[in-house]
Amino acid sequence: MIDAIDLTDCAVFVTWSTDTVRYGDLDPNLHVNNGAINQFFEDGRVHFRQACLSSTDGDKLTGFAVVKFSVIYRAPANYPGTVEIGTVVTRVGGSSYELGQGVFQDGSCVATAEVVTVHFDPGTSTSKPLPEDIRAALVRMMAGTK
Amino acid sequence: MIDAIDLTDCAVFVTWSTDTVRYGDLDPNLHVNNGAINQFFEDGRVHFRQACLSSTDGDKLTGFAVVKFSVIYRAPANYPGTVEIGTVVTRVGGSSYELGQGVFQDGSCVATAEVVTVHFDPGTSTSKPLPEDIRAALVRMMAGTK
Amino acid sequence: MIDAIDLTDCAVFVTWSTDTVRYGDLDPNLHVNNGAINQFFEDGRVHFRQACLSSTDGDKLTGFAVVKFSVIYRAPANYPGTVEIGTVVTRVGGSSYELGQGVFQDGSCVATAEVVTVHFDPGTSTSKPLPEDIRAALVRMMAGTK
Amino acid sequence: MIDAIDLTDCAVFVTWSTDTVRYGDLDPNLHVNNGAINQFFEDGRVHFRQACLSSTDGDKLTGFAVVKFSVIYRAPANYPGTVEIGTVVTRVGGSSYELGQGVFQDGSCVATAEVVTVHFDPGTSTSKPLPEDIRAALVRMMAGTK
Repeated sequence: MIDAIDLTDCAVFVTWSTDTVRYGDLDPNLHVNNGAINQFFEDGRVHFRQACLSSTDGDKLTGFAVVKFSVIYRAPANYPGTVEIGTVVTRVGGSSYELGQGVFQDGSCVATAEVVTVHFDPGTSTSKPLPEDIRAALVRMMAGTK
Repeated sequence: MIDAIDLTDCAVFVTWSTDTVRYGDLDPNLHVNNGAINQFFEDGRVHFRQACLSSTDGDKLTGFAVVKFSVIYRAPANYPGTVEIGTVVTRVGGSSYELGQGVFQDGSCVATAEVVTVHFDPGTSTSKPLPEDIRAALVRMMAGTK
Repeated sequence: MIDAIDLTDCAVFVTWSTDTVRYGDLDPNLHVNNGAINQFFEDGRVHFRQACLSSTDGDKLTGFAVVKFSVIYRAPANYPGTVEIGTVVTRVGGSSYELGQGVFQDGSCVATAEVVTVHFDPGTSTSKPLPEDIRAALVRMMAGTK
Repeated sequence: MIDAIDLTDCAVFVTWSTDTVRYGDLDPNLHVNNGAINQFFEDGRVHFRQACLSSTDGDKLTGFAVVKFSVIYRAPANYPGTVEIGTVVTRVGGSSYELGQGVFQDGSCVATAEVVTVHFDPGTSTSKPLPEDIRAALVRMMAGTK
Protein backbone atom coordinates (compact mmCIF):
# COMPACT_ATOMS: atom_id res chain seq x y z
CA MET A 1 0.00 0.00 0.00
CA ILE A 2 2.81 2.35 0.89
CA ASP A 3 3.86 2.55 -2.72
CA ALA A 4 0.57 4.24 -3.39
CA ILE A 5 1.25 7.03 -0.89
CA ASP A 6 3.19 10.09 -1.97
CA LEU A 7 5.06 11.14 1.16
CA THR A 8 6.18 14.38 -0.48
CA ASP A 9 2.51 15.47 -0.42
CA CYS A 10 1.82 17.08 2.94
CA ALA A 11 -1.88 16.26 2.59
CA VAL A 12 -1.31 12.58 3.47
CA PHE A 13 -0.18 13.08 7.06
CA VAL A 14 -2.37 12.88 10.15
CA THR A 15 -0.10 14.33 12.87
CA TRP A 16 2.36 17.22 12.70
CA SER A 17 5.11 18.53 14.94
CA THR A 18 7.72 21.28 14.68
CA ASP A 19 11.47 21.46 15.24
CA THR A 20 13.97 24.30 15.17
CA VAL A 21 17.12 23.91 13.11
CA ARG A 22 20.26 24.48 15.22
CA TYR A 23 23.59 25.96 14.23
CA GLY A 24 25.16 22.73 15.48
CA ASP A 25 23.18 20.89 12.78
CA LEU A 26 25.22 22.49 10.01
CA ASP A 27 27.94 20.45 8.37
CA PRO A 28 31.10 21.74 6.66
CA ASN A 29 29.08 22.31 3.47
CA LEU A 30 26.71 24.65 5.35
CA HIS A 31 23.91 22.10 4.90
CA VAL A 32 21.78 20.79 7.71
CA ASN A 33 23.35 17.37 8.16
CA ASN A 34 21.44 14.16 7.66
CA GLY A 35 21.80 13.30 11.34
CA ALA A 36 19.71 16.32 12.27
CA ILE A 37 17.07 15.39 9.73
CA ASN A 38 16.97 11.91 11.24
CA GLN A 39 16.35 13.55 14.64
CA PHE A 40 13.43 15.50 13.17
CA PHE A 41 11.86 12.21 12.05
CA GLU A 42 12.42 10.81 15.55
CA ASP A 43 10.68 13.78 17.14
CA GLY A 44 7.80 13.32 14.72
CA ARG A 45 7.44 9.71 15.87
CA VAL A 46 7.49 10.60 19.57
CA HIS A 47 4.86 13.25 18.92
CA PHE A 48 2.78 10.76 16.93
CA ARG A 49 2.95 8.30 19.79
CA GLN A 50 1.91 10.84 22.39
CA ALA A 51 -0.88 12.20 20.21
CA CYS A 52 -2.32 8.89 19.09
CA LEU A 53 -1.68 6.46 21.87
CA SER A 54 -2.06 8.71 24.89
CA SER A 55 -5.23 7.00 26.02
CA THR A 56 -3.48 3.64 26.04
CA ASP A 57 -2.49 1.95 29.28
CA GLY A 58 1.16 2.97 29.81
CA ASP A 59 2.30 -0.56 30.51
CA LYS A 60 1.32 -1.53 27.00
CA LEU A 61 3.62 1.13 25.51
CA THR A 62 6.86 -0.60 26.46
CA GLY A 63 8.60 -3.10 24.23
CA PHE A 64 8.45 -1.15 20.97
CA ALA A 65 11.60 -0.60 18.89
CA VAL A 66 12.37 0.88 15.50
CA VAL A 67 13.94 -1.91 13.48
CA LYS A 68 14.03 -0.38 10.01
CA PHE A 69 14.46 3.24 8.92
CA SER A 70 14.64 4.18 5.23
CA VAL A 71 15.04 7.82 4.31
CA ILE A 72 15.26 9.70 1.02
CA TYR A 73 17.01 13.08 1.29
CA ARG A 74 15.34 15.27 -1.33
CA ALA A 75 16.51 18.86 -0.80
CA PRO A 76 18.77 20.81 1.57
CA ALA A 77 17.29 22.35 4.71
CA ASN A 78 18.38 25.81 5.80
CA TYR A 79 19.50 27.53 9.00
CA PRO A 80 18.08 29.47 10.70
CA GLY A 81 14.58 28.16 10.37
CA THR A 82 12.05 25.62 11.52
CA VAL A 83 10.80 22.38 10.00
CA GLU A 84 7.44 20.64 10.13
CA ILE A 85 7.30 16.86 10.43
CA GLY A 86 4.26 14.94 9.21
CA THR A 87 3.57 11.34 10.23
CA VAL A 88 1.00 8.76 9.10
CA VAL A 89 0.47 5.03 9.58
CA THR A 90 1.00 3.15 6.32
CA ARG A 91 0.66 -0.47 7.46
CA VAL A 92 -0.47 -2.34 10.57
CA GLY A 93 0.73 -5.92 10.82
CA GLY A 94 0.48 -8.64 13.41
CA SER A 95 3.38 -7.57 15.61
CA SER A 96 4.62 -4.48 13.80
CA TYR A 97 3.48 -1.30 12.10
CA GLU A 98 4.92 1.04 9.52
CA LEU A 99 4.93 4.83 9.49
CA GLY A 100 5.41 7.21 6.58
CA GLN A 101 6.99 10.56 7.40
CA GLY A 102 7.94 13.80 5.69
CA VAL A 103 10.08 16.75 6.78
CA PHE A 104 9.06 20.05 5.22
CA GLN A 105 10.60 23.52 5.34
CA ASP A 106 8.79 26.57 4.00
CA GLY A 107 6.33 24.25 2.28
CA SER A 108 8.94 22.20 0.42
CA CYS A 109 9.71 18.56 1.12
CA VAL A 110 13.24 18.10 2.53
CA ALA A 111 13.10 14.33 3.15
CA THR A 112 10.72 11.39 3.44
CA ALA A 113 11.04 8.22 5.50
CA GLU A 114 9.48 4.82 6.00
CA VAL A 115 9.88 3.37 9.48
CA VAL A 116 9.06 -0.10 10.78
CA THR A 117 8.42 -0.50 14.52
CA VAL A 118 8.17 -3.95 16.10
CA HIS A 119 6.47 -4.95 19.34
CA PHE A 120 8.70 -7.35 21.23
CA ASP A 121 9.04 -9.12 24.52
CA PRO A 122 11.95 -7.47 26.36
CA GLY A 123 12.68 -10.71 28.18
CA THR A 124 13.13 -12.90 25.13
CA SER A 125 13.68 -10.22 22.45
CA THR A 126 11.17 -12.01 20.22
CA SER A 127 8.30 -10.22 18.57
CA LYS A 128 4.81 -10.48 20.00
CA PRO A 129 1.34 -9.42 18.81
CA LEU A 130 0.29 -5.77 19.01
CA PRO A 131 -2.19 -5.16 21.85
CA GLU A 132 -5.70 -4.83 20.44
CA ASP A 133 -6.30 -1.24 21.57
CA ILE A 134 -2.97 -0.09 20.15
CA ARG A 135 -3.75 -1.86 16.89
CA ALA A 136 -7.11 -0.13 16.77
CA ALA A 137 -5.55 3.28 17.46
CA LEU A 138 -2.98 2.70 14.73
CA VAL A 139 -5.63 1.71 12.21
CA ARG A 140 -7.44 4.95 12.96
CA MET A 141 -4.29 6.87 12.02
CA MET A 142 -3.76 5.15 8.68
CA ALA A 143 -3.38 7.11 5.46
CA GLY A 144 -6.68 7.89 3.79
CA THR A 145 -8.61 7.54 7.02
CA LYS A 146 -8.75 11.17 7.97
CA MET B 1 30.22 44.90 35.80
CA ILE B 2 28.91 41.46 34.99
CA ASP B 3 28.68 40.65 38.68
CA ALA B 4 26.01 43.30 38.91
CA ILE B 5 23.83 41.65 36.26
CA ASP B 6 21.36 38.97 37.30
CA LEU B 7 21.24 36.64 34.29
CA THR B 8 18.31 34.73 35.80
CA ASP B 9 16.20 37.88 35.28
CA CYS B 10 14.83 37.81 31.75
CA ALA B 11 14.47 41.59 31.79
CA VAL B 12 18.21 42.10 31.26
CA PHE B 13 18.45 40.60 27.76
CA VAL B 14 18.32 42.53 24.50
CA THR B 15 17.88 39.73 21.91
CA TRP B 16 15.83 36.54 22.12
CA SER B 17 15.62 33.36 20.07
CA THR B 18 13.74 30.09 20.39
CA ASP B 19 14.72 26.41 20.19
CA THR B 20 12.74 23.20 20.31
CA VAL B 21 13.83 20.46 22.71
CA ARG B 22 14.42 17.14 20.88
CA TYR B 23 13.88 13.62 22.10
CA GLY B 24 17.53 13.00 21.24
CA ASP B 25 18.45 15.63 23.87
CA LEU B 26 17.24 13.42 26.70
CA ASP B 27 19.80 11.56 28.75
CA PRO B 28 19.36 8.29 30.67
CA ASN B 29 17.89 10.27 33.58
CA LEU B 30 15.15 11.68 31.31
CA HIS B 31 16.71 15.14 31.67
CA VAL B 32 17.62 17.37 28.77
CA ASN B 33 21.37 16.86 28.74
CA ASN B 34 23.82 19.69 29.28
CA GLY B 35 25.12 19.34 25.73
CA ALA B 36 21.73 20.34 24.36
CA ILE B 37 21.58 23.32 26.70
CA ASN B 38 25.01 24.37 25.45
CA GLN B 39 23.62 24.19 21.88
CA PHE B 40 20.75 26.49 22.91
CA PHE B 41 23.31 29.06 24.10
CA GLU B 42 25.17 28.69 20.79
CA ASP B 43 21.98 29.32 18.83
CA GLY B 44 21.33 32.38 20.96
CA ARG B 45 24.77 33.73 20.06
CA VAL B 46 24.32 33.13 16.32
CA HIS B 47 20.97 34.89 16.51
CA PHE B 48 22.51 37.77 18.46
CA ARG B 49 25.20 38.13 15.82
CA GLN B 50 22.73 38.16 12.95
CA ALA B 51 20.40 40.56 14.74
CA CYS B 52 23.03 43.01 15.94
CA LEU B 53 25.81 42.93 13.41
CA SER B 54 23.84 42.39 10.22
CA SER B 55 24.66 45.82 8.90
CA THR B 56 28.37 45.18 9.31
CA ASP B 57 30.58 44.50 6.31
CA GLY B 58 30.74 40.69 6.07
CA ASP B 59 34.52 40.63 5.76
CA LYS B 60 34.79 42.11 9.23
CA LEU B 61 32.80 39.23 10.73
CA THR B 62 35.48 36.61 10.26
CA GLY B 63 38.13 35.89 12.84
CA PHE B 64 35.92 35.67 15.91
CA ALA B 65 36.10 32.68 18.23
CA VAL B 66 34.57 31.75 21.57
CA VAL B 67 37.49 31.24 23.94
CA LYS B 68 35.70 30.94 27.29
CA PHE B 69 32.28 29.51 28.15
CA SER B 70 31.06 29.35 31.76
CA VAL B 71 27.63 27.93 32.42
CA ILE B 72 25.57 27.40 35.57
CA TYR B 73 22.90 24.70 35.23
CA ARG B 74 20.07 25.81 37.49
CA ALA B 75 17.05 23.59 36.81
CA PRO B 76 16.09 20.67 34.55
CA ALA B 77 14.50 21.39 31.17
CA ASN B 78 11.64 19.23 29.94
CA TYR B 79 10.68 17.40 26.76
CA PRO B 80 8.57 18.04 24.79
CA GLY B 81 8.77 21.81 24.85
CA THR B 82 10.55 24.89 23.65
CA VAL B 83 13.12 27.15 25.27
CA GLU B 84 13.80 30.87 24.94
CA ILE B 85 17.38 32.10 24.90
CA GLY B 86 18.19 35.68 25.93
CA THR B 87 21.52 37.34 25.13
CA VAL B 88 23.10 40.64 26.19
CA VAL B 89 26.54 42.22 25.94
CA THR B 90 28.15 42.53 29.37
CA ARG B 91 31.61 43.86 28.47
CA VAL B 92 33.37 45.27 25.41
CA GLY B 93 37.16 45.18 25.56
CA GLY B 94 39.94 46.05 23.18
CA SER B 95 39.98 42.82 21.20
CA SER B 96 37.23 40.83 22.87
CA TYR B 97 33.70 41.09 24.20
CA GLU B 98 31.63 39.21 26.73
CA LEU B 99 28.02 38.06 26.50
CA GLY B 100 25.62 37.10 29.24
CA GLN B 101 22.97 34.53 28.33
CA GLY B 102 20.01 32.80 29.89
CA VAL B 103 17.93 29.78 28.81
CA PHE B 104 14.33 29.87 30.01
CA GLN B 105 11.49 27.35 29.79
CA ASP B 106 7.93 28.25 30.72
CA GLY B 107 9.25 31.41 32.33
CA SER B 108 11.78 29.68 34.60
CA CYS B 109 15.53 29.99 34.25
CA VAL B 110 17.14 26.70 33.25
CA ALA B 111 20.75 27.90 32.90
CA THR B 112 22.88 31.03 32.60
CA ALA B 113 26.19 31.53 30.83
CA GLU B 114 29.03 34.00 30.42
CA VAL B 115 30.87 33.79 27.11
CA VAL B 116 34.07 35.53 25.99
CA THR B 117 34.63 35.98 22.25
CA VAL B 118 38.00 37.14 20.91
CA HIS B 119 38.79 38.81 17.60
CA PHE B 120 41.91 37.27 16.15
CA ASP B 121 44.03 37.24 13.03
CA PRO B 122 43.49 33.83 11.37
CA GLY B 123 46.95 33.97 9.89
CA THR B 124 48.86 34.43 13.12
CA SER B 125 46.22 33.30 15.65
CA THR B 126 46.96 36.39 17.73
CA SER B 127 44.24 38.71 18.95
CA LYS B 128 43.63 42.01 17.21
CA PRO B 129 41.47 45.08 17.95
CA LEU B 130 37.71 44.97 17.37
CA PRO B 131 36.70 46.92 14.24
CA GLU B 132 35.20 50.24 15.29
CA ASP B 133 31.74 49.66 13.83
CA ILE B 134 31.47 46.25 15.49
CA ARG B 135 32.59 47.77 18.77
CA ALA B 136 29.94 50.46 18.42
CA ALA B 137 27.24 47.88 17.63
CA LEU B 138 28.27 45.81 20.66
CA VAL B 139 28.17 48.82 22.96
CA ARG B 140 24.63 49.54 21.78
CA MET B 141 23.65 46.01 22.90
CA MET B 142 25.07 46.27 26.40
CA ALA B 143 23.00 45.59 29.49
CA GLY B 144 21.14 48.58 30.75
CA THR B 145 21.23 50.27 27.36
CA LYS B 146 17.83 49.24 26.16
CA MET C 1 23.29 -7.99 -6.41
CA ILE C 2 23.04 -6.48 -2.97
CA ASP C 3 20.45 -9.03 -1.99
CA ALA C 4 23.16 -11.64 -2.29
CA ILE C 5 25.43 -9.87 0.23
CA ASP C 6 25.01 -10.59 3.92
CA LEU C 7 25.94 -7.29 5.57
CA THR C 8 25.89 -8.93 9.01
CA ASP C 9 28.96 -10.93 7.94
CA CYS C 10 32.03 -8.83 8.65
CA ALA C 11 33.97 -10.74 6.00
CA VAL C 12 32.26 -8.84 3.17
CA PHE C 13 33.67 -5.39 3.94
CA VAL C 14 36.74 -3.82 2.35
CA THR C 15 37.38 -0.80 4.61
CA TRP C 16 37.02 -0.44 8.37
CA SER C 17 36.99 2.45 10.79
CA THR C 18 36.42 2.83 14.53
CA ASP C 19 34.26 5.08 16.69
CA THR C 20 33.91 5.55 20.43
CA VAL C 21 30.44 5.46 21.97
CA ARG C 22 29.72 8.62 24.00
CA TYR C 23 27.63 9.04 27.13
CA GLY C 24 25.67 11.65 25.18
CA ASP C 25 24.65 8.88 22.76
CA LEU C 26 22.53 7.16 25.40
CA ASP C 27 18.78 7.62 25.30
CA PRO C 28 16.32 7.42 28.19
CA ASN C 29 16.26 3.62 27.81
CA LEU C 30 20.03 3.48 28.36
CA HIS C 31 20.45 2.36 24.74
CA VAL C 32 22.79 3.98 22.27
CA ASN C 33 20.28 5.95 20.22
CA ASN C 34 19.76 5.40 16.53
CA GLY C 35 21.09 8.86 15.74
CA ALA C 36 24.50 7.89 17.08
CA ILE C 37 24.47 4.69 15.04
CA ASN C 38 23.66 6.77 11.97
CA GLN C 39 26.72 8.91 12.76
CA PHE C 40 28.86 5.77 12.92
CA PHE C 41 27.73 4.88 9.39
CA GLU C 42 28.55 8.42 8.26
CA ASP C 43 32.06 8.18 9.71
CA GLY C 44 32.50 4.86 7.92
CA ARG C 45 31.59 6.52 4.63
CA VAL C 46 33.99 9.43 5.13
CA HIS C 47 36.73 6.95 5.97
CA PHE C 48 35.87 4.88 2.89
CA ARG C 49 36.08 7.95 0.72
CA GLN C 50 39.44 9.01 2.09
CA ALA C 51 40.83 5.49 1.89
CA CYS C 52 39.58 4.65 -1.60
CA LEU C 53 39.47 7.90 -3.49
CA SER C 54 42.48 9.69 -2.02
CA SER C 55 44.42 9.52 -5.27
CA THR C 56 41.57 11.18 -7.13
CA ASP C 57 41.81 14.78 -8.25
CA GLY C 58 40.13 16.76 -5.46
CA ASP C 59 38.00 18.77 -7.87
CA LYS C 60 36.28 15.58 -8.92
CA LEU C 61 35.21 14.84 -5.34
CA THR C 62 32.69 17.63 -5.09
CA GLY C 63 29.07 17.22 -6.07
CA PHE C 64 28.34 13.95 -4.29
CA ALA C 65 25.37 13.61 -1.95
CA VAL C 66 23.72 10.77 -0.06
CA VAL C 67 20.18 10.54 -1.40
CA LYS C 68 18.98 7.31 0.19
CA PHE C 69 19.86 5.72 3.53
CA SER C 70 18.21 2.48 4.67
CA VAL C 71 19.21 1.02 8.01
CA ILE C 72 18.21 -2.09 9.93
CA TYR C 73 18.81 -1.83 13.68
CA ARG C 74 19.59 -5.38 14.80
CA ALA C 75 20.85 -5.25 18.40
CA PRO C 76 21.55 -2.64 21.10
CA ALA C 77 25.02 -1.12 21.36
CA ASN C 78 26.56 -0.51 24.77
CA TYR C 79 28.36 2.29 26.56
CA PRO C 80 31.21 2.55 27.31
CA GLY C 81 32.78 0.87 24.33
CA THR C 82 33.88 1.21 20.75
CA VAL C 83 32.32 0.13 17.48
CA GLU C 84 33.82 -0.98 14.19
CA ILE C 85 32.24 0.14 10.92
CA GLY C 86 32.73 -1.88 7.75
CA THR C 87 31.98 -0.49 4.29
CA VAL C 88 31.87 -2.05 0.82
CA VAL C 89 30.65 -1.02 -2.62
CA THR C 90 27.61 -3.02 -3.70
CA ARG C 91 26.69 -1.36 -6.97
CA VAL C 92 28.21 1.17 -9.39
CA GLY C 93 25.76 2.84 -11.74
CA GLY C 94 26.00 5.57 -14.34
CA SER C 95 25.75 8.54 -12.03
CA SER C 96 25.44 6.89 -8.63
CA TYR C 97 26.86 4.13 -6.47
CA GLU C 98 25.62 2.11 -3.54
CA LEU C 99 27.46 1.15 -0.36
CA GLY C 100 26.74 -1.64 2.09
CA GLN C 101 27.74 -1.00 5.70
CA GLY C 102 27.75 -2.75 9.04
CA VAL C 103 28.32 -1.52 12.60
CA PHE C 104 29.79 -4.13 14.93
CA GLN C 105 30.50 -4.14 18.65
CA ASP C 106 32.49 -6.90 20.32
CA GLY C 107 32.11 -8.96 17.15
CA SER C 108 28.30 -8.73 17.00
CA CYS C 109 26.38 -6.88 14.33
CA VAL C 110 24.51 -3.89 15.75
CA ALA C 111 23.10 -2.50 12.49
CA THR C 112 23.44 -2.69 8.71
CA ALA C 113 22.77 -0.06 6.08
CA GLU C 114 22.45 0.45 2.35
CA VAL C 115 23.36 3.92 1.11
CA VAL C 116 22.92 5.45 -2.35
CA THR C 117 25.20 8.36 -3.30
CA VAL C 118 24.54 10.41 -6.42
CA HIS C 119 26.95 12.54 -8.43
CA PHE C 120 25.27 15.79 -9.36
CA ASP C 121 25.97 19.15 -10.90
CA PRO C 122 25.80 21.72 -8.06
CA GLY C 123 24.69 24.38 -10.52
CA THR C 124 21.68 22.57 -11.89
CA SER C 125 21.13 19.96 -9.15
CA THR C 126 20.76 17.32 -11.86
CA SER C 127 22.70 14.06 -11.79
CA LYS C 128 25.72 13.62 -14.01
CA PRO C 129 27.97 10.66 -14.91
CA LEU C 130 30.58 9.41 -12.44
CA PRO C 131 34.10 10.47 -13.48
CA GLU C 132 35.90 7.48 -14.99
CA ASP C 133 38.69 7.26 -12.42
CA ILE C 134 36.21 7.41 -9.53
CA ARG C 135 34.11 4.74 -11.21
CA ALA C 136 37.21 2.57 -11.58
CA ALA C 137 38.19 3.09 -7.92
CA LEU C 138 34.65 2.20 -6.80
CA VAL C 139 34.63 -0.97 -8.91
CA ARG C 140 37.87 -2.02 -7.25
CA MET C 141 36.13 -1.74 -3.84
CA MET C 142 33.13 -3.86 -4.75
CA ALA C 143 32.07 -6.84 -2.68
CA GLY C 144 33.81 -10.04 -3.66
CA THR C 145 36.72 -8.21 -5.24
CA LYS C 146 39.11 -8.31 -2.32
CA MET D 1 43.99 25.65 45.07
CA ILE D 2 42.84 25.14 41.53
CA ASP D 3 44.58 28.31 40.45
CA ALA D 4 47.82 26.57 41.23
CA ILE D 5 47.09 23.69 38.84
CA ASP D 6 48.03 24.03 35.19
CA LEU D 7 45.35 22.03 33.39
CA THR D 8 47.21 22.32 30.09
CA ASP D 9 49.91 20.09 31.61
CA CYS D 10 48.90 16.48 31.05
CA ALA D 11 51.01 15.42 34.01
CA VAL D 12 48.43 16.67 36.52
CA PHE D 13 45.63 14.23 35.63
CA VAL D 14 44.87 10.96 37.39
CA THR D 15 42.41 9.27 34.99
CA TRP D 16 42.35 9.24 31.20
CA SER D 17 39.83 8.21 28.58
CA THR D 18 39.70 8.38 24.78
CA ASP D 19 37.13 9.59 22.25
CA THR D 20 36.98 9.52 18.47
CA VAL D 21 36.19 12.73 16.60
CA ARG D 22 33.17 12.30 14.29
CA TYR D 23 32.47 13.92 10.95
CA GLY D 24 29.22 15.14 12.49
CA ASP D 25 31.31 17.14 15.00
CA LEU D 26 32.59 19.47 12.29
CA ASP D 27 31.03 22.89 11.97
CA PRO D 28 30.79 25.09 8.87
CA ASN D 29 34.34 26.31 9.54
CA LEU D 30 35.65 22.73 9.38
CA HIS D 31 36.47 22.94 13.09
CA VAL D 32 35.37 20.42 15.67
CA ASN D 33 32.54 22.35 17.29
CA ASN D 34 32.55 23.29 20.94
CA GLY D 35 29.58 21.04 21.61
CA ALA D 36 31.64 17.99 20.69
CA ILE D 37 34.47 19.14 22.95
CA ASN D 38 31.95 19.50 25.77
CA GLN D 39 30.89 15.88 25.12
CA PHE D 40 34.51 14.78 25.41
CA PHE D 41 34.67 16.39 28.87
CA GLU D 42 31.42 14.62 29.80
CA ASP D 43 32.85 11.26 28.73
CA GLY D 44 35.94 11.98 30.80
CA ARG D 45 33.75 12.57 33.86
CA VAL D 46 31.75 9.38 33.37
CA HIS D 47 35.00 7.46 33.00
CA PHE D 48 36.39 9.13 36.12
CA ARG D 49 33.30 8.15 38.06
CA GLN D 50 33.43 4.54 36.94
CA ALA D 51 37.17 4.30 37.55
CA CYS D 52 37.22 5.97 40.95
CA LEU D 53 33.90 5.23 42.56
CA SER D 54 33.25 1.73 41.25
CA SER D 55 33.65 0.18 44.68
CA THR D 56 31.02 2.49 46.12
CA ASP D 57 27.56 1.24 46.94
CA GLY D 58 25.47 2.08 43.86
CA ASP D 59 22.70 3.67 45.90
CA LYS D 60 25.11 6.34 47.03
CA LEU D 61 25.89 7.33 43.44
CA THR D 62 22.52 8.89 42.74
CA GLY D 63 21.76 12.51 43.40
CA PHE D 64 24.83 14.06 41.81
CA ALA D 65 24.52 16.83 39.24
CA VAL D 66 26.93 19.11 37.41
CA VAL D 67 25.97 22.65 38.40
CA LYS D 68 28.85 24.64 36.94
CA PHE D 69 30.96 24.05 33.84
CA SER D 70 33.67 26.51 32.78
CA VAL D 71 35.71 25.74 29.69
CA ILE D 72 38.55 27.51 27.91
CA TYR D 73 38.85 26.57 24.21
CA ARG D 74 42.56 26.82 23.44
CA ALA D 75 43.17 25.34 19.98
CA PRO D 76 41.17 23.68 17.19
CA ALA D 77 40.79 19.91 17.17
CA ASN D 78 41.01 18.02 13.89
CA TYR D 79 39.05 15.34 12.07
CA PRO D 80 39.73 12.50 11.59
CA GLY D 81 41.48 11.74 14.83
CA THR D 82 41.12 10.82 18.47
CA VAL D 83 41.35 12.87 21.65
CA GLU D 84 42.51 12.02 25.15
CA ILE D 85 40.65 13.41 28.15
CA GLY D 86 42.39 13.80 31.50
CA THR D 87 40.50 14.34 34.76
CA VAL D 88 41.61 15.16 38.30
CA VAL D 89 39.90 16.24 41.53
CA THR D 90 40.81 19.83 42.43
CA ARG D 91 38.61 20.44 45.48
CA VAL D 92 36.43 18.38 47.82
CA GLY D 93 33.88 20.38 49.78
CA GLY D 94 31.09 19.53 52.19
CA SER D 95 28.42 18.70 49.64
CA SER D 96 30.26 19.26 46.36
CA TYR D 97 33.50 18.59 44.57
CA GLU D 98 35.39 20.16 41.70
CA LEU D 99 37.15 18.47 38.81
CA GLY D 100 39.84 19.82 36.49
CA GLN D 101 39.88 18.42 32.97
CA GLY D 102 41.90 18.70 29.79
CA VAL D 103 41.25 17.52 26.22
CA PHE D 104 44.40 16.75 24.24
CA GLN D 105 44.99 15.81 20.61
CA ASP D 106 48.37 14.63 19.37
CA GLY D 107 49.90 15.84 22.61
CA SER D 108 48.55 19.40 22.39
CA CYS D 109 45.95 20.87 24.71
CA VAL D 110 42.69 21.63 22.89
CA ALA D 111 40.64 22.79 25.88
CA THR D 112 40.54 22.80 29.69
CA ALA D 113 37.57 22.82 32.03
CA GLU D 114 36.62 23.25 35.67
CA VAL D 115 33.46 21.43 36.74
CA VAL D 116 31.53 21.64 40.00
CA THR D 117 29.32 18.67 40.95
CA VAL D 118 26.86 18.90 43.82
CA HIS D 119 25.33 16.11 45.89
CA PHE D 120 21.66 16.79 46.39
CA ASP D 121 18.50 15.24 47.74
CA PRO D 122 16.30 14.41 44.71
CA GLY D 123 13.20 14.85 46.81
CA THR D 124 13.90 18.36 48.02
CA SER D 125 16.51 19.46 45.46
CA THR D 126 18.63 20.79 48.30
CA SER D 127 22.31 19.91 48.67
CA LYS D 128 23.39 17.33 51.21
CA PRO D 129 26.77 16.14 52.55
CA LEU D 130 28.95 13.86 50.45
CA PRO D 131 28.89 10.27 51.74
CA GLU D 132 32.08 9.56 53.66
CA ASP D 133 33.38 6.81 51.37
CA ILE D 134 32.81 8.91 48.28
CA ARG D 135 34.56 11.84 49.92
CA ALA D 136 37.49 9.57 50.77
CA ALA D 137 37.66 8.24 47.21
CA LEU D 138 37.59 11.77 45.81
CA VAL D 139 40.38 12.90 48.14
CA ARG D 140 42.51 10.00 46.88
CA MET D 141 42.07 11.35 43.32
CA MET D 142 43.13 14.91 44.09
CA ALA D 143 45.85 16.68 42.15
CA GLY D 144 49.30 16.07 43.56
CA THR D 145 48.25 12.87 45.28
CA LYS D 146 49.38 10.40 42.64
